[in-house]
Amino acid sequence: MTSDATPVEPLSRMRVVLVRTSHPGNIGAAARAMWTMGLDDLVLVAPHRFPDPDASARATGAAHLLLRARVVSALDDALAGCAWTIGASARPREFAGRVLDVRDAAREAMKRSSTGTIAWVFGTEMSGLSNEELARCACVATIPGNPRYASLNLAAAVQVAAYELRMAAGERDVWSAPRFTPATHDAIEGLHAHAARTLAALHFLDPARPRRLMPRLRRLFARAGLEQEEVNILRGILARIDDVLRRTR
Amino acid sequence: MTSDATPVEPLSRMRVVLVRTSHPGNIGAAARAMWTMGLDDLVLVAPHRFPDPDASARATGAAHLLLRARVVSALDDALAGCAWTIGASARPREFAGRVLDVRDAAREAMKRSSTGTIAWVFGTEMSGLSNEELARCACVATIPGNPRYASLNLAAAVQVAAYELRMAAGERDVWSAPRFTPATHDAIEGLHAHAARTLAALHFLDPARPRRLMPRLRRLFARAGLEQEEVNILRGILARIDDVLRRTR
Repeated sequence: MTSDATPVEPLSRMRVVLVRTSHPGNIGAAARAMWTMGLDDLVLVAPHRFPDPDASARATGAAHLLLRARVVSALDDALAGCAWTIGASARPREFAGRVLDVRDAAREAMKRSSTGTIAWVFGTEMSGLSNEELARCACVATIPGNPRYASLNLAAAVQVAAYELRMAAGERDVWSAPRFTPATHDAIEGLHAHAARTLAALHFLDPARPRRLMPRLRRLFARAGLEQEEVNILRGILARIDDVLRRTR
Repeated sequence: MTSDATPVEPLSRMRVVLVRTSHPGNIGAAARAMWTMGLDDLVLVAPHRFPDPDASARATGAAHLLLRARVVSALDDALAGCAWTIGASARPREFAGRVLDVRDAAREAMKRSSTGTIAWVFGTEMSGLSNEELARCACVATIPGNPRYASLNLAAAVQVAAYELRMAAGERDVWSAPRFTPATHDAIEGLHAHAARTLAALHFLDPARPRRLMPRLRRLFARAGLEQEEVNILRGILARIDDVLRRTR
């Protein structure tokens, strides 16, 4: 959960490596996906076209990642110095090592990030990583998906991995609804008593045969957890009904 | 992890609703994101351009979702009959109801899917859902992200939500079916419309200066999670008030 003490620093140890990407638009979209989760270390291995206006257009607010991106010619250059390397693959290939789902891989990556940079490697749009490339990774991470169609868009796969990293970092920031003052027990009892009187005057409730009406209303409002201002609103409505009923007498 | 034992049936109860999408390419990319996770119920509310070659191009292997997609003109049409509705929002709005992160929202959605269709609602690329649209949702789901740049691409947001749904489907939490029938979206909207009319007739609500009354009532009942029988009771009370008011005229 959210706190200022949550360490975001491990996210800065996460590197995304895109290998032989065909479409520069996907590079830009991947950069955007990274930055929405607080990642900013992007390395491109032999991209077909880069820099490119399509990359910049799809990056939107993450254009600075493209400016900083390092372009190298071989995967080993991108992985040099890394403490742990993870190859993304939709399905197990000829890979004899550890295969994790992306959630477990993200958790392990966060733990290992104290030891240095962690590289997440993504292959081409059409065929992913080759067996030789996967063999250079310490483990494989898969994104669980539809067995009939597991082909995530490249940037979408980066988005899921970056999201899992942020979740693993403990950065589950959720803005919370403004706090309101809960109604006291006696305020709630006063509401129920008022409602019973007004519903009886409306001939909606027969005090001689109340059936399950008031218990149902109690149950509904108990589930909601009434706030003081809501009690005031509901009592205001009841008072208006009382006024109208007085005039009809 | 994917396996044939994964219960995918609840995933067929998940509907993705895209509201006023500007770029047809994003509709196609969202369809692909859905299908990679096994979701296939797509509803488009007033898309700017659809069908469109850009949508088909980005859908790749999920083109059949576009062919099946329902196009409607109003959000309520997309949500009619749904058992639970979730609005996706990146940042705090004037929404005082429940806010969940997307992981918790997916878990709850899977549990509630036994009661009917669950709608996940996504707004426009530029500004997301309006306050009015969010108010029609039972809760808000946020994707935790970089506080400095939380603007996920629309299809990327759909990908994360669909991924979390698939992960939640595999968790197979033990849970018991609710003993009561949840009110559908249209039943709840019918209640709010009726309440607004009756409160105006009572001169409790001034339609020209509604202030915060109806949003407060919406919030209260969204928190409670109304059941069908409760809607019937509340509408019965409103109808009795209507009778009394008619007699005073």
